[in-house]
Amino acid sequence: MAEVTKPQRPLYDGLKLGMASYTFRKFTLEQAIEMSKQAGAVSISLKDVHLPMKSTSAERQEARQKVEAAGLYLASGGVIGMKNNEEEIRNAFEYAKDAGMPTIVCSPEPEALDSVEKMVKEYNIRIAIHNHGPGDKKFPSPSDVWRLVKDRDERMGLCIDVGHTVRIGVDPVDAIGRCARRLYDFHIKDETEATPKGKPVPVGRGVIDIVGVLKALKEINYGYNIGLEYEEKENDPMPGVVESFGFMRGVLAAI
Amino acid sequence: MAEVTKPQRPLYDGLKLGMASYTFRKFTLEQAIEMSKQAGAVSISLKDVHLPMKSTSAERQEARQKVEAAGLYLASGGVIGMKNNEEEIRNAFEYAKDAGMPTIVCSPEPEALDSVEKMVKEYNIRIAIHNHGPGDKKFPSPSDVWRLVKDRDERMGLCIDVGHTVRIGVDPVDAIGRCARRLYDFHIKDETEATPKGKPVPVGRGVIDIVGVLKALKEINYGYNIGLEYEEKENDPMPGVVESFGFMRGVLAAI
Repeated sequence: MAEVTKPQRPLYDGLKLGMASYTFRKFTLEQAIEMSKQAGAVSISLKDVHLPMKSTSAERQEARQKVEAAGLYLASGGVIGMKNNEEEIRNAFEYAKDAGMPTIVCSPEPEALDSVEKMVKEYNIRIAIHNHGPGDKKFPSPSDVWRLVKDRDERMGLCIDVGHTVRIGVDPVDAIGRCARRLYDFHIKDETEATPKGKPVPVGRGVIDIVGVLKALKEINYGYNIGLEYEEKENDPMPGVVESFGFMRGVLAAI
Repeated sequence: MAEVTKPQRPLYDGLKLGMASYTFRKFTLEQAIEMSKQAGAVSISLKDVHLPMKSTSAERQEARQKVEAAGLYLASGGVIGMKNNEEEIRNAFEYAKDAGMPTIVCSPEPEALDSVEKMVKEYNIRIAIHNHGPGDKKFPSPSDVWRLVKDRDERMGLCIDVGHTVRIGVDPVDAIGRCARRLYDFHIKDETEATPKGKPVPVGRGVIDIVGVLKALKEINYGYNIGLEYEEKENDPMPGVVESFGFMRGVLAAI
């Protein structure tokens, strides 16, 4: 079994760019790894399309080895849905443990949080609950996550999705500040408008204040995965991916 | 004949990104225009591969119309070599006049500068002499240009090529400051190392202080073409081009 990184230790000093493998959902794990590396990612968060929830322990370890052989860090898995079913929740933690993921990005039923907390303690693996914006009945905004985790085990936190955050009219810079202590993963992207009608575009081409967002992450000494989730052009994502990475690297070089 | 923009008026308020069409030397004019637009350029400097020096006046006007129909500004042509031959020099100014280029990026023989100055006055078209780094006998560094133009007509100035500048060991930020008053075009790129062995890479992947360079251009209120000259992968330049534009846009958003 792969070693699980101690959750309380941030992955990095300083901001580093990573990938949410959902960007490459039309491609194999091997292709997703190769394209992430080409773009300049240092870490990756794996979606189940690249490592199925029903995989064996050996398959999970193999996936991690492929990620590491490419020089990437396997920062997390997800987004993983979690019904209030202890067996299903345990499987998600086994999955993360087998693959050596220090964080599970997830969307649990609020009723499942007692069981999730029990597993967080048992497995010593962080969870980062993902806000999904308009239409998400459970966690539309980061504050909906924050309210339900803030008094629980400190390894229970958030994956702020900046796109879904602005699509619901919430200022992501403000959300980063308010949730700083429990921000354990981050989905970065850009949108054509800050409304439910917002459509994905390469980072820097939309309305999101990416400079403000990256400055806010720097300000809080954020040290976890910043996963690019570029949802446009799923069959030919690389032009938008490399442009997005270029933009973010430009901002990081200047701030 | 297309109208020639008054040379003394900068093209823009604030920094805007453009293209040096040499980047697309393996493609047609139409493709170069389309790819420049895709990348987000607002202006273009045409290399002779896209508009031959022996073109007719009608062909030159047609080229300009194609550029403008795509929403781009035809900022300049070049780099154009100029021997000390008045007929050849006049052809370059006729070329620029026919195409409505306000600036000629060029590499004249130093002995030709009296004739060039005569044409600058006659045609009211700027020249921007390009430094070509190690191996350029005439203008290896921006200061070699500056020395020969500073006491001539004020429409005679420089196109600093940031790559060739660092390849000869000169600080481009310093060069921008020193040559500010006569900086009429700019070739932006990145290099693997600041030596004659430097090889081209997408902007942001190399050793050049792009943040410092763009800050310096902003500081001097530079208002002309900033032409990306990406020389790597001439048969498939777009991934490097969009990454370079992403990086530069990220820097501009943050400074």
